[in-house]
Amino acid sequence: MSTGTPEPATPYLRVDLARLRANIAAAAELASASGVALRPHAKTHKCPEVARLQLAAGAVGLTVATIGEAEVFVDEAGADDVFVAYPLWLTPDSAARLRDLAEQVDIAIGVDSAEAARHNGSLLAGAAVSVLVEVDSGHHRSGTAPEAAGAVAAAAVEAGLALRGVFTFPGHGYGPDARAAAAADESRALTAAVASLRSVGLEPDVVSGGSTPTLAASDTGVATELRPGVYVFGDAQQWELGVLDPADIALVCRATVVSHAGGRLVLDSGSKALGADRAPYATGWGRLPAYPDARVVQLSEHHAVVDLAGAPLPALGSRVDVVPNHVCNTVNLADALWIEDDGALVRWSVSARGRNS
Amino acid sequence: MSTGTPEPATPYLRVDLARLRANIAAAAELASASGVALRPHAKTHKCPEVARLQLAAGAVGLTVATIGEAEVFVDEAGADDVFVAYPLWLTPDSAARLRDLAEQVDIAIGVDSAEAARHNGSLLAGAAVSVLVEVDSGHHRSGTAPEAAGAVAAAAVEAGLALRGVFTFPGHGYGPDARAAAAADESRALTAAVASLRSVGLEPDVVSGGSTPTLAASDTGVATELRPGVYVFGDAQQWELGVLDPADIALVCRATVVSHAGGRLVLDSGSKALGADRAPYATGWGRLPAYPDARVVQLSEHHAVVDLAGAPLPALGSRVDVVPNHVCNTVNLADALWIEDDGALVRWSVSARGRNS
Repeated sequence: MSTGTPEPATPYLRVDLARLRANIAAAAELASASGVALRPHAKTHKCPEVARLQLAAGAVGLTVATIGEAEVFVDEAGADDVFVAYPLWLTPDSAARLRDLAEQVDIAIGVDSAEAARHNGSLLAGAAVSVLVEVDSGHHRSGTAPEAAGAVAAAAVEAGLALRGVFTFPGHGYGPDARAAAAADESRALTAAVASLRSVGLEPDVVSGGSTPTLAASDTGVATELRPGVYVFGDAQQWELGVLDPADIALVCRATVVSHAGGRLVLDSGSKALGADRAPYATGWGRLPAYPDARVVQLSEHHAVVDLAGAPLPALGSRVDVVPNHVCNTVNLADALWIEDDGALVRWSVSARGRNS
Repeated sequence: MSTGTPEPATPYLRVDLARLRANIAAAAELASASGVALRPHAKTHKCPEVARLQLAAGAVGLTVATIGEAEVFVDEAGADDVFVAYPLWLTPDSAARLRDLAEQVDIAIGVDSAEAARHNGSLLAGAAVSVLVEVDSGHHRSGTAPEAAGAVAAAAVEAGLALRGVFTFPGHGYGPDARAAAAADESRALTAAVASLRSVGLEPDVVSGGSTPTLAASDTGVATELRPGVYVFGDAQQWELGVLDPADIALVCRATVVSHAGGRLVLDSGSKALGADRAPYATGWGRLPAYPDARVVQLSEHHAVVDLAGAPLPALGSRVDVVPNHVCNTVNLADALWIEDDGALVRWSVSARGRNS
């Protein structure tokens, strides 16, 4: 640590800048080698400095989930091309905010029904806001059926919105051995969506897909753009899914050993620091890089109880790093990321934390 | 809603003030009727205005989980008696913050080992910080064995700390039909802890227990103080455990219907608004007061997918309220609570949000 930089009180989020840069470069190279655009999802980091690194590495723009995130990245990261990859249902207030953004930068939003296209179109009349039609490729969350994409797109165009293309999120790739099948589903859904647009005489400029687990398997013969988010940091979900080498994980929660109660390790990194996410396939509430066999077996708001699998207990007061299960929700709990750069520790603001609308 | 108060964008947290006041009054009356002190856990609400209501209703002081929370409630709620119910392992910095607090108000902290007692005592030498020894009553998180409480207390006294008493958290009462047994465990553990203190010639001023699920079953012949937290708002966990009537739940996340994809209800209240908590006994990721048979069957960061159990889908753009599973983590995601008081909507700051250390 640099002289004069006091280490923050635990629990705090610590980022290895070299690993962060390497992860950003690797995805940029993968996209570039495949001839597709990379539009990283900034919901993962919510941090203007990270967005600047992504844009500097060649990202065509950013993906966000909310108008509030878009405002932060336009204002603080200089982003000039932002896609709100969400089926927004606008209000007069949120439409006014989008109009403001559209006067400054390229803005696109998602839409997944003809009704939403007409509603949003009426509130955005005259504004330069583009739309991408969301299709469901198997995650079964939002998104229209791929075969119905043309009808939604036609409604958007009729409502005065500029059509940019189609998008999907193959979120069902988050499961053991699910990545290849989800990527294949994504390819089929995007192909069907493009055909549906063409059937009503429309042509997409952008065919957008991607997620961190499916990234390497994306069909870049169909997709023209990929939107991974978690890849910048990695997390225990990606580790346990086998998507990455744990040595590439760039973010940890640094915790203090506060108790040895019951002969177990008790850390001060609870769910208010790590997040409470636990996917069905997760083996615990986070992983410890220094103890690959250990598991976080119990999580309260301010306690993480760790089974060390027989390893000797680190001393009371010592520091232990925990990789959170789902880093997007972890970062959204913190006001700052502490960036470790060649021994120095600097503070980056999580400026878009809590910007849920 | 009052004239001139625009409703916030969804998702946002909305509190029914009449229900909040009623919940605060009911716990105060329960404690008063049992002749025990109430020291509510402010980690649930993190909100000075809620703390003021609790103190006005007769609470002897507040419980918090971190020094940061203590600072907020002393500074912003006028709390003059705060217990950090956590086995802190102090650093020189955090000890200095506790010293500052101790010069202003009554401060106590938790300790669960002789080693921590000696360590903290050395950093707090001369400061008026009291300690309560934490004992494990069956939750198996932190806390020493009840029979060892005397040894920890003696170490604290030897280290120059003032002994206030013993405490436990019967968190294993969070389970179907687990409340009565957990309350009985708590009674036995506190009784054994008091005996352990007496065996080394020490007498506790305070014997502290309690949680929202076990509150009504607390053995007030043993405990002199109770520390429930969730009772102010209630949540879906308490609903599903049968601790409360859903009509008494005071906090909801108000969401917008953004999609009918797949014939299901998709709301904009994802895990970044509701929290990702899902206890093993939970039937989903939250409950809908207007649709008691509905379940949140899928939760992403900005999507809650609801199975309405056959009820007609509310229209796109309409508002639906969701009761979060675990309200403490929900509130910690928000900067504000929106308080509904007789038709008006006012903003209360979640001032201690993110104060994890």
